[in-house]
Amino acid sequence: MKYYAGIDLGGTNIVCGLLDEQFQLLRKLKLPTEAAKGGEHVIAKIAGMVDELIGQQGITRKDVLAIGAGIPGLINPAEGICNFAANLSWRDFKVSEKLNQLLGIPVFIDNDVRMYVQGEAAKGAGQGYPVVFGITIGTGVAAALVENGKLYYGGSYIAGEIGHIRMDGEESLCGCGLTGCLETVASATGLARQAREAVEKGTSTIMSSMVSSPAELTATHLSQAYDQGDQVAIDIMTHTGKQLGRGLSYAVTLLNPDVIVIGGGGANAGERLLGPMKQELQRLVLPMYWDRLEIKTAELLDDAGVIGSAVNASNRVAE
Amino acid sequence: MKYYAGIDLGGTNIVCGLLDEQFQLLRKLKLPTEAAKGGEHVIAKIAGMVDELIGQQGITRKDVLAIGAGIPGLINPAEGICNFAANLSWRDFKVSEKLNQLLGIPVFIDNDVRMYVQGEAAKGAGQGYPVVFGITIGTGVAAALVENGKLYYGGSYIAGEIGHIRMDGEESLCGCGLTGCLETVASATGLARQAREAVEKGTSTIMSSMVSSPAELTATHLSQAYDQGDQVAIDIMTHTGKQLGRGLSYAVTLLNPDVIVIGGGGANAGERLLGPMKQELQRLVLPMYWDRLEIKTAELLDDAGVIGSAVNASNRVAE
Repeated sequence: MKYYAGIDLGGTNIVCGLLDEQFQLLRKLKLPTEAAKGGEHVIAKIAGMVDELIGQQGITRKDVLAIGAGIPGLINPAEGICNFAANLSWRDFKVSEKLNQLLGIPVFIDNDVRMYVQGEAAKGAGQGYPVVFGITIGTGVAAALVENGKLYYGGSYIAGEIGHIRMDGEESLCGCGLTGCLETVASATGLARQAREAVEKGTSTIMSSMVSSPAELTATHLSQAYDQGDQVAIDIMTHTGKQLGRGLSYAVTLLNPDVIVIGGGGANAGERLLGPMKQELQRLVLPMYWDRLEIKTAELLDDAGVIGSAVNASNRVAE
Repeated sequence: MKYYAGIDLGGTNIVCGLLDEQFQLLRKLKLPTEAAKGGEHVIAKIAGMVDELIGQQGITRKDVLAIGAGIPGLINPAEGICNFAANLSWRDFKVSEKLNQLLGIPVFIDNDVRMYVQGEAAKGAGQGYPVVFGITIGTGVAAALVENGKLYYGGSYIAGEIGHIRMDGEESLCGCGLTGCLETVASATGLARQAREAVEKGTSTIMSSMVSSPAELTATHLSQAYDQGDQVAIDIMTHTGKQLGRGLSYAVTLLNPDVIVIGGGGANAGERLLGPMKQELQRLVLPMYWDRLEIKTAELLDDAGVIGSAVNASNRVAE
């Protein structure tokens, strides 16, 4: 029996999994990334986690066919280099080569959102659909496309940045330096910002009494206020859902997916956000797109990145 | 030596070409479609044109490896069926099967814009670029994506309808039944409509004196007025170019192409339209997309569809 290792590398935690050839997750470890200690430390830590899982399973490194890893940043998967990862302070860092040197197992890295969507497409909410468009709504918003099991990359591996589509009528400065990007609105950060701004403006809302300072407001407070019938919260969720629907309408018209899989913490807002999103999406796209489109929330949750990384490693090692 | 036939089927004319295995166009015929005489007539006419070219070349049907055809409508390329073509009044018409019955040569049909972009990607302005996004600006606006020589289709072969992206601030009714679609503005029809509306509104413009009735105004009149410094014409071109740039910004951010190839009659407006388009596109997308992006006008002109159809037939027959 052979195995794959899948790694979901975040700015805060590393999750490392051991999977069988059907991508069943057999074992999992989670440890703090400790990015501040530097890239070599992080790589050594990942290698240690893989060895730990191998030991627990009672196998050897030779039983692991390949290791996949999803990294939050700009990745060149062909060369195995992380060109830029803000949360890890990595720039042109040869991840695949370094990890391979420590373990002697082929390593394939990719962008974390792509690995997440690859996982959902192979084993989660997108399973069985030929064309899967996956979007993660978290601190930021990003997307990836999987066509018949194969990821779409674009010319320089940076396709899918739906969070940086510029929305008419939005003016907030985005972390990327542009203004009015979709993720300034339709992200956990964007929801929190809108709640904060409403309270700071002195608008009458129960969210004012939920925190001692508006800066503490989160998307969760917004959901709570929404559930208590707070009109400001309802308006923010509705506006955000509609903007998300508009952003997705561009993707649907250009890409004609069979299913949209929605993941990330923002999906926790559920129908409060997805209700207006679907309405707006249906309103904006041709019926021929809408009629066959399914919209689902992610199913693998925290395991999507680990599973997707293993699936990707399996595809890549077979090339 | 072996050959391919490529067919560009339009509502007005059929263009039929004979190509060698390097997709050099050796011979070409053009005849009126006579769509009103029915589908069987059109198919028989195409078969006659292919036989005519074969005769001229002094070869036999057996020397033709495959026939490709681009059709303006909704096509199922896998089944060789034209599901809907408004200009031909075809619905669920088995084009491949019928043409194959007459000629005994494998036939592969596809959407005409896809064939146009396939041609430009293989032998025209997109040659040498791994990811080609091609857009045709004619009566309508449509697009296709070619990644490493392979067309992107989406889940039901209807990806790429950029002309039906809904634009904020646009209100005109589109032929598709929606309002504010990009092609209500950024098409030859959309340009003519804006010119007509300006004249009908009584706006001071030299376009008023160019035609006896505003309904006669075309995109060409707009270009002429633009060149004479007419502010109304300049404003319409600028607005249209900017909307086109905005529509393309969604495609660039989602698809990360290496090159955008712009074709169709609308490309005749040249920098009058493409100048503001490029400015707006650069303003709206992240520098990482813009910096590597090339924007070119189509090179094969009327032959793109014929060449692309032959390239597609060659790909399909090899599957």
